[in-house]
Amino acid sequence: MKYDIVIIGGNPSGGSAAAAAREIYKDKKVLVIRKEEKSLIPCGIPYVFGTLEDVDNDVKSIQPAKNSGIDFLIDEVQKIVPDEKRLELKTSEDVNYEKLIVATGSTPVVPPIEGSTLKGVISIGKEIDYIKSIHAFLKEGKDVVVIGAGFIGVEMSNEMVKLGAKVTLIEAMDTILPLAFDEDVIAAPAQVLSSHGVEIRVNTKVSKIEGNDGKVSGVRLDSGELITADRVIMATGYRPNVSLAQEAGLSIGSSGGIITDEYLRTNYDGIFAVGDCVEHRDFFTRKQSRLMLASTGASEARIAGMNLYDLRVVRQTKGSIAIFSTSLDDISMGAAGLTEKSALAEGFQVVIGQNKGVDHHPACLPDTKEQMVKLIFSKCAGVILGAQIVGGPSTGEMINILGLAIQKHMTVSELAIMQYGTQPLLTAGPGNYPIVLAAMNALGKIENFKM
Amino acid sequence: MKYDIVIIGGNPSGGSAAAAAREIYKDKKVLVIRKEEKSLIPCGIPYVFGTLEDVDNDVKSIQPAKNSGIDFLIDEVQKIVPDEKRLELKTSEDVNYEKLIVATGSTPVVPPIEGSTLKGVISIGKEIDYIKSIHAFLKEGKDVVVIGAGFIGVEMSNEMVKLGAKVTLIEAMDTILPLAFDEDVIAAPAQVLSSHGVEIRVNTKVSKIEGNDGKVSGVRLDSGELITADRVIMATGYRPNVSLAQEAGLSIGSSGGIITDEYLRTNYDGIFAVGDCVEHRDFFTRKQSRLMLASTGASEARIAGMNLYDLRVVRQTKGSIAIFSTSLDDISMGAAGLTEKSALAEGFQVVIGQNKGVDHHPACLPDTKEQMVKLIFSKCAGVILGAQIVGGPSTGEMINILGLAIQKHMTVSELAIMQYGTQPLLTAGPGNYPIVLAAMNALGKIENFKM
Repeated sequence: MKYDIVIIGGNPSGGSAAAAAREIYKDKKVLVIRKEEKSLIPCGIPYVFGTLEDVDNDVKSIQPAKNSGIDFLIDEVQKIVPDEKRLELKTSEDVNYEKLIVATGSTPVVPPIEGSTLKGVISIGKEIDYIKSIHAFLKEGKDVVVIGAGFIGVEMSNEMVKLGAKVTLIEAMDTILPLAFDEDVIAAPAQVLSSHGVEIRVNTKVSKIEGNDGKVSGVRLDSGELITADRVIMATGYRPNVSLAQEAGLSIGSSGGIITDEYLRTNYDGIFAVGDCVEHRDFFTRKQSRLMLASTGASEARIAGMNLYDLRVVRQTKGSIAIFSTSLDDISMGAAGLTEKSALAEGFQVVIGQNKGVDHHPACLPDTKEQMVKLIFSKCAGVILGAQIVGGPSTGEMINILGLAIQKHMTVSELAIMQYGTQPLLTAGPGNYPIVLAAMNALGKIENFKM
Repeated sequence: MKYDIVIIGGNPSGGSAAAAAREIYKDKKVLVIRKEEKSLIPCGIPYVFGTLEDVDNDVKSIQPAKNSGIDFLIDEVQKIVPDEKRLELKTSEDVNYEKLIVATGSTPVVPPIEGSTLKGVISIGKEIDYIKSIHAFLKEGKDVVVIGAGFIGVEMSNEMVKLGAKVTLIEAMDTILPLAFDEDVIAAPAQVLSSHGVEIRVNTKVSKIEGNDGKVSGVRLDSGELITADRVIMATGYRPNVSLAQEAGLSIGSSGGIITDEYLRTNYDGIFAVGDCVEHRDFFTRKQSRLMLASTGASEARIAGMNLYDLRVVRQTKGSIAIFSTSLDDISMGAAGLTEKSALAEGFQVVIGQNKGVDHHPACLPDTKEQMVKLIFSKCAGVILGAQIVGGPSTGEMINILGLAIQKHMTVSELAIMQYGTQPLLTAGPGNYPIVLAAMNALGKIENFKM
């Protein structure tokens, strides 16, 4: 079997690379090889336990991609043979490629603590069969401990309390979502999560997981305290799936991901890599990053898909900007770029701009939510380094405004004179648009510091 | 009385100019002179008749501005004496200024058609006393004709049907919201407005308004047809309030607004003008524009407020981008920059990118809405000229992403590789982010055109 362009992996990154290749190289044959006939939307997985009810409700249909002219092969790649541009598969005949995109994704990391293999200790994998296998079992949990307050841990906690479980969320660092938010911003959402019934324990380390008859019975903390549990969710991160790439001789970076250049090319001619299996570089610090975010993966995958046969200098990644958002139903949060604490830790001098307002105007309109914007600027360059928002459901798109501002290296002056639209039912008021007022707040500090 | 900085007018533009001046020039005394103790949020006015119920619910509190150190004088300026930097007021003593910002706003235009002075023919002014005077009378209307399907006309129509009135919306051009949207985009929202009970009559001209005993009884169309009515709302635009400026010798442009430069300076030293009373210039066409939008006014007002004593070259307006959004409750629409038809009419060659998807992922999540994005790019430069969105409540912030992209002259390639965040409850999926897919769609056309 011979294809022009072959993608290993059908996750959002693999799928986006295929779609971009299909859009740009209309005369090429494109094949996606993936293990599952049906695959889950990864960011929707926490919701299959509560809001979505059923696992099958989170399946991403393969049909639109097929309709666009992308072929699919449900099989597992066993070996990449770069010198022959050939793939060996588990059951099908070999596939030859001109261009290969590796999008093998990531797998949950379970830290090697005592008791982590007890029945009832569960990590949130991404395969549909695995999620189906834990679905009923997890939903029946009455006494749930979630270890790790990243996005998966927070979303799982909020879904599990909806099911009526007692939930304790344990985080070693000093806030929930510690990598995305500063403490002053995340305090209000943490209170909301508490008010939903989640007991949040920050600055808390687990020493071991305890059990009876091979079943989990509780989580023992460093302090000696025991938290009883019939289910323990390990929301402790993911590691890149690189064994296939490594065996083929692709270079692996210190973070454990495949090394690529700005066009997502690996060290082998004609082989690209995208998504969670790749070592990213941070947009500002230029450091290796294990950022695993479907949206970032999809963006970079499109760059790969558009540079397969001829490089387009205007389409290369300048580094990954972490842009996150999530919702606890009645409050939503978004973050982009560096936090204040990470910027300071990296050696940036910063100026902070903040604004508190509401997301409709006037505030007595139905469904009005408080809206808080924090912007982090470089003191010397005046360039935006990061942004955090807490507000209503528009937070998800609003953080994308600031993600774009970061991507364009916008300055505090540019954001202060930014043009925007407002509407009573959809946004803050024209005189109170919070991104602009937060920029004005920072500008006032800078101007009066100079005078 | 002597102030460093005086603003005439307390609308969003005047207020934003004052706030910017207060933020940047912390040692200056700032005074706002306005006619009303209480003033309405202008964009909220259509909602006082329905959703907001009471006029007082749309009042913008003066207190935050007072708390920030801005003084207020409730009075009417009778004369500007530029040579003496002095204002004459209706009741108070004269006020001397160093810097003056004119923000005198706009007044509804009532076209000179027969019957426009009949009782029951109402325009949507902005003074609180006026709106209170028509509030009960308008709400009692059973048979309402709205003339003009711009934003005010559309929002008023949607509010009036909620009150149980029979509503007919008449528009001379070929769609509702004809200046902001192309017909292919606005067709679905127009259907929703119809489904709410508004009878939409496009390509329809009014010949006169008919009455009995001085009261309106119906609207006669060019075709001869009579539409009966007990209330007629004239949503036929606004004209700049420039008599004060004109008497003082400020230059007035061909569009009827005060002429300013990129720093919002008028032809008199120390006098700036902002908001609806100003003649804008379009961002792309550079033509004089009568754009009247509170958000645009507020943005430009901040530029004036930051350039009063010393020019900041990084903070000047490069022309006004019209960025609109509105909502019909169950569907929302946003538009920024040029439409396809206006771009073509102005002589731009264009490439269109489009995408249809949903605003949550997976689509079976509660409150998921269809989401459609249309992007208009310049064919030769690849630069974005305009954008239109139809979707859910996130449309209001999403159009601001595209407004920023326009402001930064972003190209189709830059938008195709844009980084963004996604979240099941808040946005489209990572592989389906509609702005990026619409850019990809345009890029595919451009690339395959070149090949």
